[in-house]
Amino acid sequence: MTEFNITILGSNSAIFNHGRHPTAQVVNINNACFLVDCGEGTQERLYENKIKWFKIDHIFISHLHGDHYFGLIGLLTTFNLLKRTNKLTVFGPKELKKIIDIQLKVSNTKMNYELKFVATKDDEKRLLLDLPECSVYSIPLHHKLPTTGFLFAEKTEPRLLDLEKIRKYAIAKTDFKLLKQGLDVLDKDGRKVKNSAVTTKGKTPRSYAFCSDTMYHIPLVKAIKNVDLLYHEATFLHEDLQRAKETTHSTALQAAQIAKKANAKKLLLGHFSSRYIDLSVLENEAKTFFKNVELAIEGGVFKV
Amino acid sequence: MTEFNITILGSNSAIFNHGRHPTAQVVNINNACFLVDCGEGTQERLYENKIKWFKIDHIFISHLHGDHYFGLIGLLTTFNLLKRTNKLTVFGPKELKKIIDIQLKVSNTKMNYELKFVATKDDEKRLLLDLPECSVYSIPLHHKLPTTGFLFAEKTEPRLLDLEKIRKYAIAKTDFKLLKQGLDVLDKDGRKVKNSAVTTKGKTPRSYAFCSDTMYHIPLVKAIKNVDLLYHEATFLHEDLQRAKETTHSTALQAAQIAKKANAKKLLLGHFSSRYIDLSVLENEAKTFFKNVELAIEGGVFKV
Repeated sequence: MTEFNITILGSNSAIFNHGRHPTAQVVNINNACFLVDCGEGTQERLYENKIKWFKIDHIFISHLHGDHYFGLIGLLTTFNLLKRTNKLTVFGPKELKKIIDIQLKVSNTKMNYELKFVATKDDEKRLLLDLPECSVYSIPLHHKLPTTGFLFAEKTEPRLLDLEKIRKYAIAKTDFKLLKQGLDVLDKDGRKVKNSAVTTKGKTPRSYAFCSDTMYHIPLVKAIKNVDLLYHEATFLHEDLQRAKETTHSTALQAAQIAKKANAKKLLLGHFSSRYIDLSVLENEAKTFFKNVELAIEGGVFKV
Repeated sequence: MTEFNITILGSNSAIFNHGRHPTAQVVNINNACFLVDCGEGTQERLYENKIKWFKIDHIFISHLHGDHYFGLIGLLTTFNLLKRTNKLTVFGPKELKKIIDIQLKVSNTKMNYELKFVATKDDEKRLLLDLPECSVYSIPLHHKLPTTGFLFAEKTEPRLLDLEKIRKYAIAKTDFKLLKQGLDVLDKDGRKVKNSAVTTKGKTPRSYAFCSDTMYHIPLVKAIKNVDLLYHEATFLHEDLQRAKETTHSTALQAAQIAKKANAKKLLLGHFSSRYIDLSVLENEAKTFFKNVELAIEGGVFKV
């Protein structure tokens, strides 16, 4: 089965604390790496977690609070110092380009590689990237600044040919493509062969949703319906609901509520407030409402 | 004796490598802390080295290559998140203000504390800051971008009163101030008392010069003459002189030559190229020309 996993490089909120770093994670699908958010020090975390840097061709930035992007300029210029040549695309709020550009300009930095910016919008779910492995969508979140989450969805797999059964019918090889698409075909004698007689269902496409930062936001449910793995911020315990509302963040319980409503298979909690040294309190709270919960602990690799 | 020491937070050039971080150091004079340069991750280094963050009221940025300032925006906003209220002054090239301002603006960040920028100029040695403990000067360096070093100089100490000897003369207490200034005074009978008869020389003021990044630059010698401790970049070995010239950096031997010409008491080498895993080769090269050399190893504290 194709590899599809998430490596957590950082999941603390706001500042470095208790040995925990600001948000960054790598989504690995079939050996293509996508970097999601890039807090300060992400390049060091990539190194520590043995991620092959040059496999990253796409970076997604959720919003412009510093704990989600202050490491970006350092990573982009380090790529340059290391003589990267392959194109890199950065998806993020439109002001991000200006911030990077001014820093490249004052240092007279000429990039060896093509650096492309794609501005995200937080108005509706939008397709950002369409690759053979997967599609990546932005998802509107509800936070103090314009913020999007990201949904990584494997492509719908073609139906699988059952070669043994196919041999019983005289089907032209040129029709195999139609069978994979789920269509019925005719055999060499002109008799109809039902698709289900010679194919089986392809692999069920999997999906991963990154949702940080956001307050409890019901419209999100529709955008991530039936997701396999949901990373949802859980900055606070529910006893701090008022603080969560003021800062437009979520509680662990609310993250669990979103996971349940979305029919997610598994919930990964992250973006932990520094007020919690022992994070199990957040995990336990979420588990009171949703069974399959894990903490997005730094260095953890989570299969989708 | 007043404390005067340097803590190295990072001294690698260009990128994080071999566990070594980009440039940042803390100058501590009588418990006042000055941060010099602020590469990515400096806030984590401050934490690791147990520096009391809020004692830092002045930050000096040498130039706008990222390995000398990419950690600044993170530190400034972390100060804010930690509810800093005391004023902070940042000295650096004039474009620095714009870079910080745009990042505060896009995140709608309102600072709890007064943040002041002072633009440095690399045309001549200039007094940047005059405090009771010390004066801080910018020093022109020669690098690809406009760059200044920084000279931290203790104030000339007043002469010390020898109270035992003073008792032998009938000197009015109101004249003690004149004695401290090195002047002769009259006793109560109108007889002249020579200053040297009742005072001794005050403590010799010490000085520290931070000189990075720069190529071998003879005019620097005059600006740092007789400095007690000289931090001079030594990016390369002298066998890589050509590379040093192309990149406007110095070799370890050149750093030693500057130290000798300036009559420095001690030389601290830093800004090491990632090509050197074992840094003793740089130390040994400098020692062939100048005796008192140390490597600015991360975490090291060096007395001035």
